[in-house]
Amino acid sequence: MSEYVLAADLGGTNLRMAAVGADGEFLDSRSAPTPSSGDVEETVEAIVRLAVDCRDSISDLFELRSLGLAAAALVSAADGRIFSAPNLHQLDGCDLGVLLRTRLGVPVVIENDANAAAIGEHWLGAAKGVRNAIVVTLGTGVGGGLILNGEIFRGSDGTAGEIGHINVEPQGVLCGCGSYGCVEQYASATAIVRMAKELDPSVSEDVTSLDLYRAGVRGDKNAVEVFRRMGSYLGIAFANLVNTLNPDVIVIGGGVAAGWDLYIDHVRRQINEKAFQQPAGRVKLVRAELGNHAGMLGAARLALQAGRSGVLTAN
Amino acid sequence: MSEYVLAADLGGTNLRMAAVGADGEFLDSRSAPTPSSGDVEETVEAIVRLAVDCRDSISDLFELRSLGLAAAALVSAADGRIFSAPNLHQLDGCDLGVLLRTRLGVPVVIENDANAAAIGEHWLGAAKGVRNAIVVTLGTGVGGGLILNGEIFRGSDGTAGEIGHINVEPQGVLCGCGSYGCVEQYASATAIVRMAKELDPSVSEDVTSLDLYRAGVRGDKNAVEVFRRMGSYLGIAFANLVNTLNPDVIVIGGGVAAGWDLYIDHVRRQINEKAFQQPAGRVKLVRAELGNHAGMLGAARLALQAGRSGVLTAN
Repeated sequence: MSEYVLAADLGGTNLRMAAVGADGEFLDSRSAPTPSSGDVEETVEAIVRLAVDCRDSISDLFELRSLGLAAAALVSAADGRIFSAPNLHQLDGCDLGVLLRTRLGVPVVIENDANAAAIGEHWLGAAKGVRNAIVVTLGTGVGGGLILNGEIFRGSDGTAGEIGHINVEPQGVLCGCGSYGCVEQYASATAIVRMAKELDPSVSEDVTSLDLYRAGVRGDKNAVEVFRRMGSYLGIAFANLVNTLNPDVIVIGGGVAAGWDLYIDHVRRQINEKAFQQPAGRVKLVRAELGNHAGMLGAARLALQAGRSGVLTAN
Repeated sequence: MSEYVLAADLGGTNLRMAAVGADGEFLDSRSAPTPSSGDVEETVEAIVRLAVDCRDSISDLFELRSLGLAAAALVSAADGRIFSAPNLHQLDGCDLGVLLRTRLGVPVVIENDANAAAIGEHWLGAAKGVRNAIVVTLGTGVGGGLILNGEIFRGSDGTAGEIGHINVEPQGVLCGCGSYGCVEQYASATAIVRMAKELDPSVSEDVTSLDLYRAGVRGDKNAVEVFRRMGSYLGIAFANLVNTLNPDVIVIGGGVAAGWDLYIDHVRRQINEKAFQQPAGRVKLVRAELGNHAGMLGAARLALQAGRSGVLTAN
């Protein structure tokens, strides 16, 4: 009998779920809005509902092994407990793994979403077969995951890889994390919009980073300047990582990654100027390949590697 | 028959050599000035001479296994070749391992001095038994070595751990590496003296960081301010490392480490303000324990772990 796992990606806005086979093939996939009520039970219920729907759609010839969940949260590597979740505050301190295991009757593995994306890209995407890779996700925020010596590196608690909070401007913009001048404040979608409004207060109130990218491609000077700043600050953070970790590759994904041709030369310039010649010459900058499936595929990979147990018993 | 290794530390100013037993005990130790001629042959000759002197002092009951050398240089992890050596330019691109192996007739292991210090502190010093440690050496420059998951982390070429070149001030002071605003320009002995002269041009031309530390302890306002700045910038670099690597401990050594009580509170404050609560709360800041033996002990550790071969045949 073939085995499969359930893989979920719990973001601040959307909850996605897939049934994934041993080679990463999607057997089924579903999504729903992340409950906004701020209630743990409702969040657990939403995950269980999608999990059961996925499971029910899969032929009896397949057996469910476990569930992996990528969450937009700092996750304890030791036990899957949520340390904190800036966009899912109901989960702060929550033992989500135990709650889901109880409801679903299968082993549950929980991982930070950026780490999961790194594991996914290392398994089946742009970092496949690479020994040392940094996987960066540029979205509403800036997430990161480290593949070191071929394995995800979690650090002592499981919080390693928070490269969105590398400081690039000591007296810089206040960040949601409480610090000032984090690279997230210069290289996320939110930051791109903020910088555009700073340069030109007449910019439309509801402009998006995609609008600004398109304007930049058309030659709009302010938009070009915003992506220059964005790329330069991102490059400073990357130069720090290149000097510190000497990686083979930095994989850039997330919605903002699409602006590639407006910022990547500025990223490269900062790396070449600020990092040592040997590691700067070594590191490749490449685009992520798995899109918004990266987190689910990483969660699936972890679930496939986790210990096996009985059958799905969720009610 | 007991085995021992030779362990050398080749710095810009001094060359040190010890015969080291299996538990890290020094059986003999010697030192000489590093040849300043800029000639590779002379540098090799100086190392060989100290090695032979050390060997000759050791009883025939001990057998030499190999030589480990810690060098102030970027070292290729693959083959021990020197990529570049800012303070020992004669070694740029030099295959020092092969030259020494040919002369000494034993396996030779070469490692960056800051990595060697990290290995030494992890073996017998302040990071003993620790899973994830960052070992920082504050001297003329700022060196670093990473112990990740209990092993030295070298990155893809062997250049990882260059944390002295983390950027802490994008428009900052020009660094010897060619970049601007590296933490080395704010937290090294050289930087402390420079900052003191910037604050008060009347400061004596030949003041040292130790003089400034003593002045600070006596309450001299400018000296106190210099160490505040130094600690704050060092703290920014450490906060980046805490967010990125979530280590158990940061070990601080080197001559400048002695100024501890004037800067450590500022380091801690930056970590607490700029890093996430969980990893900031986890990380301990401790002083190195092995002094200027750390590099030699790390080199000895690597030599002890390296493959065994015949007898010393240097002429």
